[in-house]
Amino acid sequence: MPLEERYLTSLMVRYNGHCLLIDCGEGTQLAIRKCGWGFKAIDAILFTHFHADHIAGLPGLLLTIGNSDRIKPLFIYGPPGIRSIVQGLCMICGGLPYEVYVCELNIKDNNGQIFNIENIPDLEISALKVDHRICCYAYSINLKRAGKFDANRAKLKNIPIKYWSRLQKGEIIKDSGNIWQPEDVLGKPRKGIKVTYCTDTRPIPDIAQFAQSSDLFICEGMYGDDEKLQSAIEKKHMLFSEAAKLAKNAQVKELWLTHYSPSVDDPQEYIPKIKNIFPNIIAGDNGMKKEINFIDE
Amino acid sequence: MPLEERYLTSLMVRYNGHCLLIDCGEGTQLAIRKCGWGFKAIDAILFTHFHADHIAGLPGLLLTIGNSDRIKPLFIYGPPGIRSIVQGLCMICGGLPYEVYVCELNIKDNNGQIFNIENIPDLEISALKVDHRICCYAYSINLKRAGKFDANRAKLKNIPIKYWSRLQKGEIIKDSGNIWQPEDVLGKPRKGIKVTYCTDTRPIPDIAQFAQSSDLFICEGMYGDDEKLQSAIEKKHMLFSEAAKLAKNAQVKELWLTHYSPSVDDPQEYIPKIKNIFPNIIAGDNGMKKEINFIDE
Repeated sequence: MPLEERYLTSLMVRYNGHCLLIDCGEGTQLAIRKCGWGFKAIDAILFTHFHADHIAGLPGLLLTIGNSDRIKPLFIYGPPGIRSIVQGLCMICGGLPYEVYVCELNIKDNNGQIFNIENIPDLEISALKVDHRICCYAYSINLKRAGKFDANRAKLKNIPIKYWSRLQKGEIIKDSGNIWQPEDVLGKPRKGIKVTYCTDTRPIPDIAQFAQSSDLFICEGMYGDDEKLQSAIEKKHMLFSEAAKLAKNAQVKELWLTHYSPSVDDPQEYIPKIKNIFPNIIAGDNGMKKEINFIDE
Repeated sequence: MPLEERYLTSLMVRYNGHCLLIDCGEGTQLAIRKCGWGFKAIDAILFTHFHADHIAGLPGLLLTIGNSDRIKPLFIYGPPGIRSIVQGLCMICGGLPYEVYVCELNIKDNNGQIFNIENIPDLEISALKVDHRICCYAYSINLKRAGKFDANRAKLKNIPIKYWSRLQKGEIIKDSGNIWQPEDVLGKPRKGIKVTYCTDTRPIPDIAQFAQSSDLFICEGMYGDDEKLQSAIEKKHMLFSEAAKLAKNAQVKELWLTHYSPSVDDPQEYIPKIKNIFPNIIAGDNGMKKEINFIDE
């Protein structure tokens, strides 16, 4: 349930003028506004599952996006059933000034399944079916990074300079009988950026595989107290310590905990105890932000 | 749209252990929680119309009521179409532990139409069709008060004392050939309590008639500045001064303004100017409360 002092869990990924939102509970639009971000650039919304704390804010958000003069289409992704849920919730949305396209994902593979978001093609998204009371997905957002452009190789192959940037962007160039491939001029792919968002699930081992080497792993932690294990199992949620173990096994750079039970007054108090499982752990809080950049090797 | 510092407009009427809510936008459940009121006693929800700022909070509220251990049925009333809207919004509500009954009102009479709420029979509700962009109702809540019990008349008629309280409550008593009517022992009805809630409309004259002699008249005021009349007309809303004129014509005791445009930073600044139209006017604010009691004449 939404609390005055704690927004519901969601993630906004901003990349190159695009915004991608994962989950939208009651009040998420307030959280976005408080960050000082606009609404117009929200190109896509992904839903993990259909519990109200993750989706009830959708109609209000779509209307607010409408008030921001967006006219470009917006894409919504989620588990099977998303189309009728969006239709139901949006009965109160009247005529939005932009198109909303809804894509039902049907994830079966235990290793996650890859797809692209229609209007943010640079981002590669993976979805994994996790273990909650209803069908629920974790999402990984991958921004790949091509290899370094080797001007010497381009010169040796007599590739006209006007094609260099297109090759760098991954395009194959055909010109007067010549065919140049990006791999002719690019080094081996460099490390990209990976962010994994995983909430409302038991800590199944697939998650560690799925989140492997994430720069940022945002994971639910329902209870700080290990004695609440039985409740966590019944409600299909996690202990903080279980999230820390996943982070360790996934060898992520950083773990942010979120989605606390209302019974957890101060998540901070449990952090020191689990730092021995995984050291780089942060108790998520309202409006937490992080800028992640490519690292030059 | 919901703002961090301003909740969306709604009214909670609490009477004799019952709660009746009018409108429920995104965040209304937070406003209720902040008042320190529980959720279990919410017996009925009335909707003025289906714009998201008045109804988008319904699924979240119903779930929170479910978490409060309510098992008694809850009744929802609203304009035609309410049934399918509630059905659509509640696709994310799963199995609530109580029944939800939805009653479609179809108000045609210009003087308002009276109905009773199934589980709060003491309250008499009137609905009036007002003038908004979509079908919208104003509501009046009337708590009637019977005349004073006249013990001397009851004694003269030899009515056994055991029947006095039932007669006082309006019951007709039949016993061994005798029939006693409440009017045999009650004085003429005394002044009750009337509260009128009117938002999202132009100031049509019917409203003044409908709100006549209200103890409290809660009315929208979209713009404080009279120069915004054209916007008010286009958007089918009111100026503060138009609400004040309605209050004057309706001879209400007190007017509370609400439903300000986000462009109105400080509603207070416009109040002095309109006090000459109607003096007892208050700019509504988050969590405003008033206890209204019967007045002994």
